[in-house]
Formats: sequence, structure tokens, C-alpha cells
Amino acid sequence: MSHFRQNFITKEWVIIAPERAKRPDQFRSDKGLKVLPEYDATCPFCPGNEHLTPPAVMEIKSGGSWAQRTVPNKFAAVMPELSAERHLEGKYLTVDGFGIAEVVVEHPSHNKDLALLELEDVKGVLRMYKERATELAKNPQVDLVTIFKNHGLRAGTSLEHSHSQIIATAIVPIHMRYWMNQALTYHDDFGECPFCLLLKDELRYQVRVIIDSEHFVAWCPFASKSPFEIRVMPKRHNSQYDCINEAEIDDLAVVLRSLLKKLYNGLADPDYNFVIYSSTVSEGETQYFHWQMTIVPKLTTPAGFEMGTGIFINVMPPEDAAKFLREVSVA
Amino acid sequence: MSHFRQNFITKEWVIIAPERAKRPDQFRSDKGLKVLPEYDATCPFCPGNEHLTPPAVMEIKSGGSWAQRTVPNKFAAVMPELSAERHLEGKYLTVDGFGIAEVVVEHPSHNKDLALLELEDVKGVLRMYKERATELAKNPQVDLVTIFKNHGLRAGTSLEHSHSQIIATAIVPIHMRYWMNQALTYHDDFGECPFCLLLKDELRYQVRVIIDSEHFVAWCPFASKSPFEIRVMPKRHNSQYDCINEAEIDDLAVVLRSLLKKLYNGLADPDYNFVIYSSTVSEGETQYFHWQMTIVPKLTTPAGFEMGTGIFINVMPPEDAAKFLREVSVA
Repeated sequence: MSHFRQNFITKEWVIIAPERAKRPDQFRSDKGLKVLPEYDATCPFCPGNEHLTPPAVMEIKSGGSWAQRTVPNKFAAVMPELSAERHLEGKYLTVDGFGIAEVVVEHPSHNKDLALLELEDVKGVLRMYKERATELAKNPQVDLVTIFKNHGLRAGTSLEHSHSQIIATAIVPIHMRYWMNQALTYHDDFGECPFCLLLKDELRYQVRVIIDSEHFVAWCPFASKSPFEIRVMPKRHNSQYDCINEAEIDDLAVVLRSLLKKLYNGLADPDYNFVIYSSTVSEGETQYFHWQMTIVPKLTTPAGFEMGTGIFINVMPPEDAAKFLREVSVA
Repeated sequence: MSHFRQNFITKEWVIIAPERAKRPDQFRSDKGLKVLPEYDATCPFCPGNEHLTPPAVMEIKSGGSWAQRTVPNKFAAVMPELSAERHLEGKYLTVDGFGIAEVVVEHPSHNKDLALLELEDVKGVLRMYKERATELAKNPQVDLVTIFKNHGLRAGTSLEHSHSQIIATAIVPIHMRYWMNQALTYHDDFGECPFCLLLKDELRYQVRVIIDSEHFVAWCPFASKSPFEIRVMPKRHNSQYDCINEAEIDDLAVVLRSLLKKLYNGLADPDYNFVIYSSTVSEGETQYFHWQMTIVPKLTTPAGFEMGTGIFINVMPPEDAAKFLREVSVA
């Protein structure tokens, strides 16, 4: 029976409509597994083409050449040389386009997505995120650091060479502020982090859990907005990704690669976005916000109803999605 | 220079990034103008196939046969026979899937989108919206009526025969509640409807206005989330679409058809969504909320940054979009 579910923290509703559901394997991407060359002479991220990007801000080396590489985003919508000064145009607020946008090239090979990398390279990527996020947060204008990855056309990328992005802004969007305030209110009322509570609840119920590792839990959220949405949270309470320690990086590399491999194998390399959310820089380490990662395969198209109401219709109950993903082999 | 702009009412930020902009005509859809047959024997919305849909709840007749027809949505995610009872599963809130979902078939011809209909038929569609919205709001469980249209694959529809949808729910989503509360707060502070203010401001500035008719203004919003986004508001303050009068329907038909024709001619029939927003049924007619229509051509793909921050990057300044749309012929 179709029913509405409310996100415990944001109070957003979704409709879980299993009557319209396909079997999980019917969500397999039909674009066909693309065979890319290992090297593309025109790709700005392939070795030998380093002159096509601005100079690297950080490199992780392996055997004399780079294994991971972070460069300023040449085509960014925000620019570090601008100010974050506020202006009023009549009643309307604008801010100069200050921001720092960087691209993390995840591997020298043109044809290896994160799901297919060696564990050591996934660790390198996660370490790169930590180093760059820490560095960007030191800029006195920066108040939010967002780490994300767009994989595939439907997820908004056109560059095939596997990469992710880090964007630091002075602006704290209402989206983030509202979410943090909801968490703060819960903490004020009940004296605990609402995300720690969710994590413990999911471990108790088990039905939506995909992976329960030493340091992380990955599950399909109760009020998932779309099929196979995945949330990953550290068991140790921390508000910002840059607090991640070496043992956690090692563990998260295994968890993240497994999750992406499950999507790759189970749904035939679907396009996806992921985001790592941390608290604002000015709030810093808090008792109420918990850093986390959300992975969303792009399998459905939000339309007028979602635009009108903010209510997403999800035809795949998260309990069924989790069961399917638990069972997909990562070999 | 790229800069952030804040939505005056919702406080949502967008980045206007004209450096990355294409010329307006480079946004033309490349899918090619599709030539559809006037009649498709397998289409449930074509005349003669009325038995493929549930019985009509309303028809507008023209010369003995129907010109517009509204039917219950056979594949809806919500169902009128369910209750809207709340349940707590532990701490987590769910509601049975009550809702009423109807489909408005806009014309008997298989191959005529709203942009290409005769004026009389567009009026019929708008009148149908009014009648059905009025009727659905009488259901004691209903608290929100959302009217919308999905045109094309990227806008989330697969049925080519031109149609729109009306969904009535018991749930008032946080999305809507937040927006109404922001408007209420503005009204509390300044004693006027913030949307009336926006409308007057846009008429004064002129630079974002596309059409200024007797009863309506259509413009590209200051903080447009995506290229060629269009807002249409009635000059007469009213909170709910079902208060629209005959003179306004006649005028809106001309305005809406012109706007859709401008998109069709100027951007080569882009996929689009539109939504008509009204206040909740229980709030009813208020001084602070103003019914309105938003039209969004689907020309870009929101990605990880939008998912992480709620900040949309828009490469087409609304002032340039409005200028382009003003100049596109509706012939």
C-alpha cells in the first residue's frame, strides 16, 4: 500500500509507492557498460596533459608519478579572487561570487571509476578530501565546504575521467542552516545527536542496513527520496569530515568501494551523485550535527509534483532496496 | 562577474554565472521537433480509446464530442480510498497514502501541445483546472491541491498526448509550509503581501518582465534557479487558483499560450514543467499568499553541488533570458 513517510529530522515527506515498483533488477541502467580507453590524449585529467589544467594544489605520489591530483576548477561558477561582500539592490540581496572550487582527479587511468579502483587509491581519494577540506576551511572567508561527485551524464558531468569536486563558499545556504537548526532543536529537547540516534535505530532494526563495518554504517534511509538512495555515517560522533582519522579512512575506503561496486554490479553502472556533508566552519565541532555521506543513483526523473510540493515519489521501498544491495556481490 | 542572489521570500541562494553562459539560442533543444501523428490508436487519451481510462470526472464539450477531459489517474502514487491517518513506527511518522490524482487531457489531437492549441482550448484547460481544483478542495481530507504539467521525457513524462495533472493531498509538505510562513512573516512585519510587492517591483524595473497583460505579469525571477525560468502572477491579489475569474482565464490563456509558444519557437520545443501554486485549503484566502505559476524548461542537470547545498548554478542571467523571450515571436 502506498504511504507517506516523514524524514525524522528535516520533516520532509516522501511517498513510498510500491504498487508502481519494478523488481530491483529492472532498475538496471540500459545505457550499456561503456568501454573507455585507458588513456585519452585529449583528456585534461590524463597523465601528460597536466598543462591543460591549472597547476595542482596537491598530489599524492605513487612510484614516482601522481596517483591522485587536485587542481583548481578552471570552469568554476565561483572564484577565489572575488570578495564575499553583501550588496542590497533595492530589497534584493546579492553577494560577489567568492568561492574556491577544486577538482580531485581520482586516478591516472582514464577508464577507472571509483568503484573499480584499488583500495589504496580509494584511500588516497578520501585522504585528499580530508587534506583539501582542512586547508580550504582555513580561508577566513570560507564557511561551508562541500565535497561531491557527479558520475555520468544524468548526474550532471560530461568528463568521463573519474573525478570529484570540492567547493568552499562563504554562503551558508538555507538548506544547510535549516537542517542544522532542526538537529539543534532535537538536541536541545532530547540531549543527544539525532543522527547518532538514527544510526543506532537502523542498527537495531537491521532491515535497511546494507553494511555495518567497524567504523561506519551504510543504509537506505527510512524516507528515501529515490530508489537505492544510500546514507553512510561514522559511528564515532563528529560534525566535520576533516576530523576523520586514519583507521576510519581505511574502513570508509572499503565501505564506499563496496557500495559503489554494488551499484555498478547490481544496477549496471548507474549514473550517481554523492555528497559529503559537514557542519559549517563557524559552527565547527558540535554535539548536534554529524558528518555523513549520501549516495543517490539517478534512476528516476523528478517532475512537476516534486517541483510543486517537494514530496518525492519513490517506487522502491528502502527495505527492498537494502535487501537487494546487501545481496549483490562486490566481486 | 558571477554572483550569488537571494530569493527575497524563501532566502534560497542561487549563483548567477554568466561567464559560463551560452548565448540564449544555444539552449535550443537538440532533440529535433518531433512529428507526431494526429491520432494514435494505442494512446489512452485519443478519442475512441476512452475505455482505456477510468470514466471521466468532467468533460468540456465542443461540437458534440469532448474538447477537454479529466480522468482519475490510473497509475497514481496516491489513492482516494485510503485514509490520511497518522501512524508512529517507533519515532517515525507515516501516513496512509490518501490523495486524489487526476489527469487533464488537454485536447483530442494526439500531436498538439498546449503551446499549439487554439485559444478556446487553452481557456478550456484553465477552466477545467479551476473546476477540478474547486471540487477536490471540498473533500474534507484534502488540504493541498497542486496543478502541474510535465512536458517531455526530461520533465518526467512518457505519454506524448498533451495532458496535465492535479494532485490533492491531505499532507501539507514542509516545502509549502515554510514558503507560506516566510510570506506570513513578511506580511506581519510590513503589512503587505510580499508577492504583490515583487510584482510591483518587477513592473517598475521592467528588465525581467516578459509579458505585462491586463491581469497578469510574467517575468524571469531575480533569483532564477535555472535558465529561462518564468513566474506568472495575477495582478489581483488572491491566494488560490480557484478564485480566478472569467476575465482572468481569458487573459491567462493568451499569456500562457504566448509563453509556451515563445519557449517552443525560441528554444525548439524544450521539455518543461509548470506548477500552479495555491495556498493550503485550510488557510484558504489569505492576505499574505498569492497564487502563481512557475514554468521551468528542463535545460540543465542539477548535480552534486545542488544536492549538497540547495544552491543552484544558473548560467543564464534572468535579465538576458527575459530579453530573449520578449523578442521571440509567437507567430
